Amino acid sequence: MPLLAIDLRRLHCRDSPPSQVHPSQTSVYFAAKNEELGGDKSGSFPSIIRMRLRTRRRRSLILPQNGANGVRQSWHERFCDSPDVLKSARRGQTVVPVLDTEIGGSEFITMAGPCSVETEFQLIATGNHVSRAGARILRGGAFKPRSSPYAFQGHGLAGLQMLARAREESGLPIITEVMSECDVPMVAEYADILQIGTRNMENYSLLEAAARSGKPILLKRGMMATITDFLRSAQLILDNGNPNVILCERGIRTFETAMRNTFDVAAIVLLKQISHLPVIADPSHAAGCRELVPALARVAVAAGADGLLVEVHPNPDKAWSDADQTLSFAEFDDMMASLDPYITLRPRVAIREMASANAMEAVG
Amino acid sequence: MPLLAIDLRRLHCRDSPPSQVHPSQTSVYFAAKNEELGGDKSGSFPSIIRMRLRTRRRRSLILPQNGANGVRQSWHERFCDSPDVLKSARRGQTVVPVLDTEIGGSEFITMAGPCSVETEFQLIATGNHVSRAGARILRGGAFKPRSSPYAFQGHGLAGLQMLARAREESGLPIITEVMSECDVPMVAEYADILQIGTRNMENYSLLEAAARSGKPILLKRGMMATITDFLRSAQLILDNGNPNVILCERGIRTFETAMRNTFDVAAIVLLKQISHLPVIADPSHAAGCRELVPALARVAVAAGADGLLVEVHPNPDKAWSDADQTLSFAEFDDMMASLDPYITLRPRVAIREMASANAMEAVG
Amino acid sequence: MPLLAIDLRRLHCRDSPPSQVHPSQTSVYFAAKNEELGGDKSGSFPSIIRMRLRTRRRRSLILPQNGANGVRQSWHERFCDSPDVLKSARRGQTVVPVLDTEIGGSEFITMAGPCSVETEFQLIATGNHVSRAGARILRGGAFKPRSSPYAFQGHGLAGLQMLARAREESGLPIITEVMSECDVPMVAEYADILQIGTRNMENYSLLEAAARSGKPILLKRGMMATITDFLRSAQLILDNGNPNVILCERGIRTFETAMRNTFDVAAIVLLKQISHLPVIADPSHAAGCRELVPALARVAVAAGADGLLVEVHPNPDKAWSDADQTLSFAEFDDMMASLDPYITLRPRVAIREMASANAMEAVG
Amino acid sequence: MPLLAIDLRRLHCRDSPPSQVHPSQTSVYFAAKNEELGGDKSGSFPSIIRMRLRTRRRRSLILPQNGANGVRQSWHERFCDSPDVLKSARRGQTVVPVLDTEIGGSEFITMAGPCSVETEFQLIATGNHVSRAGARILRGGAFKPRSSPYAFQGHGLAGLQMLARAREESGLPIITEVMSECDVPMVAEYADILQIGTRNMENYSLLEAAARSGKPILLKRGMMATITDFLRSAQLILDNGNPNVILCERGIRTFETAMRNTFDVAAIVLLKQISHLPVIADPSHAAGCRELVPALARVAVAAGADGLLVEVHPNPDKAWSDADQTLSFAEFDDMMASLDPYITLRPRVAIREMASANAMEAVG
Repeated sequence: MPLLAIDLRRLHCRDSPPSQVHPSQTSVYFAAKNEELGGDKSGSFPSIIRMRLRTRRRRSLILPQNGANGVRQSWHERFCDSPDVLKSARRGQTVVPVLDTEIGGSEFITMAGPCSVETEFQLIATGNHVSRAGARILRGGAFKPRSSPYAFQGHGLAGLQMLARAREESGLPIITEVMSECDVPMVAEYADILQIGTRNMENYSLLEAAARSGKPILLKRGMMATITDFLRSAQLILDNGNPNVILCERGIRTFETAMRNTFDVAAIVLLKQISHLPVIADPSHAAGCRELVPALARVAVAAGADGLLVEVHPNPDKAWSDADQTLSFAEFDDMMASLDPYITLRPRVAIREMASANAMEAVG
Repeated sequence: MPLLAIDLRRLHCRDSPPSQVHPSQTSVYFAAKNEELGGDKSGSFPSIIRMRLRTRRRRSLILPQNGANGVRQSWHERFCDSPDVLKSARRGQTVVPVLDTEIGGSEFITMAGPCSVETEFQLIATGNHVSRAGARILRGGAFKPRSSPYAFQGHGLAGLQMLARAREESGLPIITEVMSECDVPMVAEYADILQIGTRNMENYSLLEAAARSGKPILLKRGMMATITDFLRSAQLILDNGNPNVILCERGIRTFETAMRNTFDVAAIVLLKQISHLPVIADPSHAAGCRELVPALARVAVAAGADGLLVEVHPNPDKAWSDADQTLSFAEFDDMMASLDPYITLRPRVAIREMASANAMEAVG
Repeated sequence: MPLLAIDLRRLHCRDSPPSQVHPSQTSVYFAAKNEELGGDKSGSFPSIIRMRLRTRRRRSLILPQNGANGVRQSWHERFCDSPDVLKSARRGQTVVPVLDTEIGGSEFITMAGPCSVETEFQLIATGNHVSRAGARILRGGAFKPRSSPYAFQGHGLAGLQMLARAREESGLPIITEVMSECDVPMVAEYADILQIGTRNMENYSLLEAAARSGKPILLKRGMMATITDFLRSAQLILDNGNPNVILCERGIRTFETAMRNTFDVAAIVLLKQISHLPVIADPSHAAGCRELVPALARVAVAAGADGLLVEVHPNPDKAWSDADQTLSFAEFDDMMASLDPYITLRPRVAIREMASANAMEAVG
Repeated sequence: MPLLAIDLRRLHCRDSPPSQVHPSQTSVYFAAKNEELGGDKSGSFPSIIRMRLRTRRRRSLILPQNGANGVRQSWHERFCDSPDVLKSARRGQTVVPVLDTEIGGSEFITMAGPCSVETEFQLIATGNHVSRAGARILRGGAFKPRSSPYAFQGHGLAGLQMLARAREESGLPIITEVMSECDVPMVAEYADILQIGTRNMENYSLLEAAARSGKPILLKRGMMATITDFLRSAQLILDNGNPNVILCERGIRTFETAMRNTFDVAAIVLLKQISHLPVIADPSHAAGCRELVPALARVAVAAGADGLLVEVHPNPDKAWSDADQTLSFAEFDDMMASLDPYITLRPRVAIREMASANAMEAVG
C-alpha cells in the first residue's frame, strides 16, 4: 500500500548517489509497480527501467514506518533489486531436489566431506562414514583456489571421477566447486550440486554459466559481500533460468582475527525471514579451527538454517588443505549426536517463521 | 642465537612488533613460566616483566602444534596478556552474586528493561512484567551517551532513584550504565551491577574507578574491539581487585549495514571456551530491530551464553531511545517461551564444555 | 502523505531508523529551520526537539541533487547533527592560538616529540632538536593508555613537570594527552594543548571536562569512528563553550593488517572541505613503522592538512613505547627537508579550497 | 643474517594455521635460503618447496629484528609467497611498454575516459580532449559488471570496435576491462591493456587466461583484499609468463561510508617500497564523488604512484554509469593543471626511494 497511494511526482524511487552510500548500495532500484505509475501493465523490466530513467531527477524516498511491519518493508526496499529472491505471495519456500534428497524442505541436510579430493580411498571411506552418521550429501574439492603457487590445486577431472565413484559407493549425491566458466560443462557432468566459492561470488560470467547448466547451485557468500551483494548474485542465477539456488553463509572478513572469519549468524536469521531460498551454514570456514565447529553448527541450527556444509577427513592432521578446521570421523559423530535435540526443535521455529512470512505478505 | 640461550622446548613467548601486526596485537606478552627461564619462583608480575625486558631482543616464537590441544594453546598465547581472565587449574567458573541471584551459575539469567529510564510508572510496570515472565534482573539507563546534542541524555540521579523504587516493587536487582568516573560512587550507591558501555570499553580511568567500587561489572565489548582488547579490559578490572566481571557481546561494527551491528556469536563460543567469566549476549543492540531479537537470543542460548540483556518497554514505539529494537511486553513473553526448550538443553552443553576445559588444563 | 503535508522545498530532515542504517547513523537529527515548520522562532534546541518529536512519524527524505553542489549538500545533511563544526557563511576558518603559534592559519605546524615522557634529558634534547628542525610544538605523553598491565603507564605529574621544563628550554608550547576527567585540571595547568586519545574519542565525560578547561583540544579520531562520529565529538566540545578544536586523523582499524592502521587520507580531504576546524595528521600511528612515516607526512601535506603530529626520540630503538614507529633526529630532519617543497605548494591548494567553500555557501 | 646464524634445527619457516591468523595470512611461505638449510644452491622454487614440505611439522618462526632494516625484512617475509613481485637485486623497476608509451618509467601516466563506452562520438570526443590535456591512455568499459539486472551492461564487441576507432583518432592506447575468461581473446585483439576489475581480483581462471594473452594487465585491488592477497594475484600473472603487471589501488571497503571506498594511500607507499611493479591510483572509485577526485589524485602523486586512472565524460550528469564520480572536461583540465607541480617533484621522491631499495637489498 505505502508507496503506491501517491502519484509519481510525489517520488517513490530511491536513487542513491554513490557519494552518500555504502558501496553495497550503489545500484538503483525502483520498487513501484508499473501500473501504479502509469506505465504499461506488463511488469517487464524495460518498462521499469524507462520509469527509472524518467524519474531520475526526482530524488526522494518515503522511509518506512516504525514497527514490525515497517521494518520488514524496509528490507523489501533494501533488497529490492533482487526481487525474485525475496519471499512473496507468489513464491513459497524453494525446495531444491538433489537426486532423492531435498534441500530447503522439512529435513535438516548435512553436507560433509574433505576440503580436497585426495585419493579414492579417502573419499569412499569418508562418504561411507558420514552417510552412516546422518549426512545426506558428500562434499569434496576437485578444483582448488590457486591462492598460493605452493598450495595443492586439486586433481581436476580425476577428482571428479573419484567423486562419482564415491557417490556410487555411499549413495550420497555430491557437491563440488567449479572455478572456471570453461569447466562448467565438465563439472556439471559429474556433480549433483555446483558450488560457487567465496572468491567467485561476484564472478558474473561464472554465475551465468553455472546457472545455465541447470544443476542446483550452492552460492557461498563472498567474504567481503554485503547481504545486498549476496542476494544480487542469487538474483542473477534466477534471471538465467535456474531456480535451484542454495545460499551459504561461511563467515565474513572483519577486523577480528581470533578466528578465520566472523560468522554472521544474523545473516542466516535475516535471510530466512526475507528469502524463500534454502540457507545453509559452513561452520568450518567460519571458525577456521575444529574445536569451534560443533558449537557454530549448533548455533546455525538454532538460527533456522536448512543445513550445514562441514569438512570431515579420515585423518585431519594429514589433510592436504584446511587441516586445522577439519573434523575427524569421531568428532563428526559427536557433533551430529549433539545437534540432534536442536534439530528436533526446528519445526517450532519454522512455524513461527511462517507466521512472520505471512505477516510480511500483508505489507509487501 | 636468541632462542637458544634458553631451553627451546620450554620457551613460549610471543613478541609482536607493532609494525607487523594488527592493532589488536600490539602489546607484548611473555608467557613462559619463570622457573623455566631462571627467574624467581614467585610468578609475580615484576619477575615476568623483568624477563620480558631481558628477552626483548630475542624475538622468536614457537608456533602451536596442529590439532585440538595445540589450537587451545595458541589461544592461551594469543590472550596471554590477560592471564587472569583465562581458565586455568586454579580458577573455576566465576559465579557473580547479585543480591540473591547468581550470574554464571546453573541458571540462565535474563536482564530486561527499557533502554532509558523515562518515568517511574514505565519502570515499575516493566519491572513487574519482566519479572513475571522470568527475567532475573532489571535494566534501565539513567545516564545515556551524549552521541547527539539532540538526543535524550537521561534523568541522572532521579533516574537512579526510580530504578531503586522499581527494585523494591519488582524484587529484581538493577543494572545501569555509568559513564563518568566521577559518577561511580553515586551510581554504585543505587545499582546492583555497573554497566560499562561499548564506547567506554577502553576508558581505563572509568574501568578502574568502577572496579574499585566493589560492585559487579558488566563490560560491553567495544563495537570495534577485538577479543584481545576485550579481555585486556576485563583483566584491568581484575587487576584492580574486582573479580565480578560479566562479559557482554553486543555486536561489532563491520562493512555490513543491513543490521545495526554484526552479532559475533563465535566470540561467545570462544569466550566460554577460554575464560571462566560469565558471558552474556545483548541481542537488541546486535540486531537493531525487534524482529530479529528473539532469533538472536535463541542463538545466544545455543552458543552457551550465561544470560541475555534485552530491551523491553511498555510501548516500544514511544520509547525515548532505541525504539526500533525494543520488544513489547507481548513480544518479550513470546521470546521467553520460545527460549525455554533451548535453555533446557544447556546442561548437556555445559558438560561438554567442562570436558573441553579439562582437556585444556592438560595442555595449558 | 508524510512528505506532502509540508512544503517540500523547505523540508530538510533525515530520520534514519536504526534498522536501516549503519551504526554510525543511529542518531536522529532534524535540520529544518523552525520557522519553516510552524515552530517558534527562537531556534533553540528544545524547540527543535519538540519539532523532532512532532514530526517523528513523518519519515521522509529529500535526496540531494546530482552534481557538484548537490553532493556538498548531501554532506551538509549527513553531518547535520554537528552543525557548528561545518563551514558556513558565518564561520570562517578556525585558527587556534597556542602561545605565539597558530594552528589552522597560514603556517604548516609540525608537533613532534617522544611517545612517552621518559626523562628530562630525553625531553629537552628532543625539544631543542625538533625546534631547530622546524617543529612548532613539542609532544610527549605523561599518561599512557593502560592497554596492557605490563606496559609503561607514564610518569603522571612528574612527566607534566618535565614537559614544562622542556617548554622553557625549547620555547615550544606543549601538547600532552589527558586520559581521565579527574586529571583535567592538573594537565590543563601544564599543557598548552590537551590531547584526547583515540580510545577516548567517545568518552563524553572527558570531552566535556576537557572542553570546560578552556585549553585548545586536539581530538584524535577513534580507530573505529566514522567521520560522523568524529564530528559529533567535536560538536560536543563546541557545545561546551570551547571553540579551539583541532581534528586529528591517525588511521582507522580495517581488515588490512600490513600496517598498524589504515591511514584515511580522504577523511582529511573531506574534513577540509566541510569543516572550518584545523585538521592535522598523525603519520606515526597510521603507519606503525618508521619507514612509511615520511611518505605519509608528504601525503598529508598534499591532502591539505594544517599540520602533523609525529613521534621523534633521541634513540628510537630504546624508546619505552612505540619504538618501531618513532623517528630518530636524523630521520626527522630528512623528513622535514623533504616536506618543504610540498608545504610551499600549499597556498595554491588553499586558494582552490576557498573557492570550493564559497561555492558551498551558495548552496548551503 | 638474522635467521641464519642459529641452528634452529633448520626451522625457519612460518606456517600459519588458519585458526590463528587472519585470512590474509593463510598461505605458507618459506623465507630461508636454500643453502642454509642444506638444500641445493640454485635457489629455485622446487628446492624451497621440498624443504617446506620436509619442515612442515616444525612450526617455528624467527621474528624480525627491530629497526629500519628489520621492518623491511618483515615485509619480505610477510609477502614471501609472492616472491617475484618483490624488489630484489635481480629485478629492476618494471617498465610496461604500451605502444609508444611506458608505464612505470620516468613519466607520470594518466589514463582517462568514460566509465562505459556509450557512443563513438562520446568516446572520440573524450579521447581527443584528454589527449590534449595530457592523458597518455584512453579508458572505457565495453563490458560492465552485472551487479544489477537494471544496470547498463556494456556494448561488448561493438564497444571494443568504438574503442579501436577512438584509438585511431586520438592516438592513445586503450585500456578496457575483461570480465570473462572466454572473452579474453576477443578483448585482447582490441585492447592495449587488459583491466582486471576489483570483483575479479581472485578469479584465478580469468587471471591465468588474461596473463597468457601476452597483453599488459592492470590488476585492480579487490575491495576487501589485503595487500598480501593483492600481491598473490599479481604473482599468479607473473607465474603464467606475463611480466607486464600494473597494480591499481582503488579504495577498500571499510566501516566508513561517507565516501564510496576508503582510499588506502599507504598501500601505494608500501607497494612502491616493496615491489618493482608500477602502481597507479584510481581516485574516481576511491572517492565516489567528483569533488574529491582532484585532491585524491594529488595525494596519489605525492605517495609516489606511477599514474592515475580517472573517469572523464563530455557530460558527466548524463553518463550511463558512475555519473557522480566522473569529471567533466573542464574539471579534468583543472585537475591536470593542479597536478603539474606535484608531478615535477616526483624525481626527488624517486631518488629517495631508490636509496631505500638499495638499503633493502643490503638486508634481503
